[in-house]
Amino acid sequence: MRILSGIQPTGRFHWGNYFGAIRQYIEFQHEHEGLYFIADLHALNTIRDAGVLRQNVQDAAIDLLALGLDPAKATLFVQSEIPEVSRLCWLLMTGTPLGLLERCHAFKDKKAKGLPASAGLFTYPVLMAADILLYDSNWVPVGEDQVQHIEVCRDLARSFNVHFGETFVMPEAKVVEDAAKVPGTDGEKMSKSYDNTLAIFEPVKDVRKKIMRISTDSRPMEEAKEPEGDHLYDLLKLVASPEETQEVAAIYRRGGFGYGDIKKRLADASERYFAAARERRVELESNPQYVRSVLDQGAAKAREKASEVLARVESACGIK
Amino acid sequence: MRILSGIQPTGRFHWGNYFGAIRQYIEFQHEHEGLYFIADLHALNTIRDAGVLRQNVQDAAIDLLALGLDPAKATLFVQSEIPEVSRLCWLLMTGTPLGLLERCHAFKDKKAKGLPASAGLFTYPVLMAADILLYDSNWVPVGEDQVQHIEVCRDLARSFNVHFGETFVMPEAKVVEDAAKVPGTDGEKMSKSYDNTLAIFEPVKDVRKKIMRISTDSRPMEEAKEPEGDHLYDLLKLVASPEETQEVAAIYRRGGFGYGDIKKRLADASERYFAAARERRVELESNPQYVRSVLDQGAAKAREKASEVLARVESACGIK
Repeated sequence: MRILSGIQPTGRFHWGNYFGAIRQYIEFQHEHEGLYFIADLHALNTIRDAGVLRQNVQDAAIDLLALGLDPAKATLFVQSEIPEVSRLCWLLMTGTPLGLLERCHAFKDKKAKGLPASAGLFTYPVLMAADILLYDSNWVPVGEDQVQHIEVCRDLARSFNVHFGETFVMPEAKVVEDAAKVPGTDGEKMSKSYDNTLAIFEPVKDVRKKIMRISTDSRPMEEAKEPEGDHLYDLLKLVASPEETQEVAAIYRRGGFGYGDIKKRLADASERYFAAARERRVELESNPQYVRSVLDQGAAKAREKASEVLARVESACGIK
Repeated sequence: MRILSGIQPTGRFHWGNYFGAIRQYIEFQHEHEGLYFIADLHALNTIRDAGVLRQNVQDAAIDLLALGLDPAKATLFVQSEIPEVSRLCWLLMTGTPLGLLERCHAFKDKKAKGLPASAGLFTYPVLMAADILLYDSNWVPVGEDQVQHIEVCRDLARSFNVHFGETFVMPEAKVVEDAAKVPGTDGEKMSKSYDNTLAIFEPVKDVRKKIMRISTDSRPMEEAKEPEGDHLYDLLKLVASPEETQEVAAIYRRGGFGYGDIKKRLADASERYFAAARERRVELESNPQYVRSVLDQGAAKAREKASEVLARVESACGIK
């Protein structure tokens, strides 16, 4: 099975990104042929600052490698370094009914909010379809919110195949159970737009400070509490050992504890949890040549497949 | 001055295409650096048959060379052979306000007629902007109906330059006076959609047959007539020598003639007018290697400029 994951370099990854998606995505490298790309062409829709975009792409590559993406097993590359993807995007565009894009929730939501939309945002699902189809991808792990875009991709592939003959491999959405709907520091879903995130690689003492400021309720200390559903506990579960998690659950149920102690435990556990990745990150950051070489090799490998598929598509529709 | 002309390979060229545009476009090669491309990526919006598209591209190349486009002076290439154009297209897409495209007449007309539109047709002006900006084009000869699309191109270039710093050369529309609003065989504007065309390179006897069937009025033969505005006379003016044109004008004004005679003159004159091009076409058709080598050299030359400009754009917006 060839699995494709795109990751938007829209800033430093937080726990929500990691526990909700990246961790699972990286896991696939052990059992499948994994292709991981940093979606800078998509990011250009929102990041209109060259320096920020460049830095984000570099950070995303380092973060992924530090978090365990293994270039010996998987292929990591930057989207824009595969010229074939833009070419396939246009070819697909000519066969995309406007209505299909107008019905996409992501676009409709934006429009409903009266936000100005660019053609790039509107046609985002077409580029995403090109991302997927270009590598004969079988599976695309996505969150629930992206299932519709995979459907668009399948629609485009299907109608191309029907009209021009079998050309594209039909991909499937693999909905990743983010049982870890990771809560933010305010108890809402963790999201950059709520400003309630814990970044994975920010300085340890900054994370600690944020953890100590996590909102809690004002029930008396002595009261016994149900841990499940409490966002402090839910965060702790992500990074603590099973033993510590059980221990804390018991403390909750017993009552007679202060949230401050739990926060300290969370800070300590998160420090331990990410310690190895943090160390790898420091190494990687001091070795940009290595990171560059990983991306170069990844791009070369991705292009092998991409050029084969594009040639098939161009020949089918008469462009070559 | 660098002049860029794109020609859609949507079928064999007719007199309307030639006298209304191609003839003037080719003329520019003598005084300017001319870039001429066969717009197969645009054509894919309407031609969904691989064999037809391939044949049309080949025919367009041969037609242009037969009609006098000189590869020693100008650069002739096929749009899709410049991968940079699709790449620039996406980069521009991310900065294109949707409203700008929604206001384009070509799209609005189609929508008003209730015709199904594809994303490719809707975003056509963005690809067109990429076509133009990719070569630092100074002038783009267009008909009146394309002026709005050049304005879109200028808008995109301007806003990119303002936001990311001077990157694009600002192109200008050069509206070609097609004083020759070439009439069709029914007196309406010559257009494939009216099925009233005279193709340049169809067999001589087919053209002759079509000419003999040109609609005329039923005024009595003896009546004196004003030639100007008569579509038979207007067609003759395009292909006859000035002497013959004067002679025919005199015949009209004198009266006492049959339209059949004028039609014969028109057929003869058109045969003479296109004889040399027709001969060149036969030669070119028997030498596909030569045509291929012209297109290869054209693409190589175009890519030199294209890669330079794309590098500039990518660096400006942080993609490289």
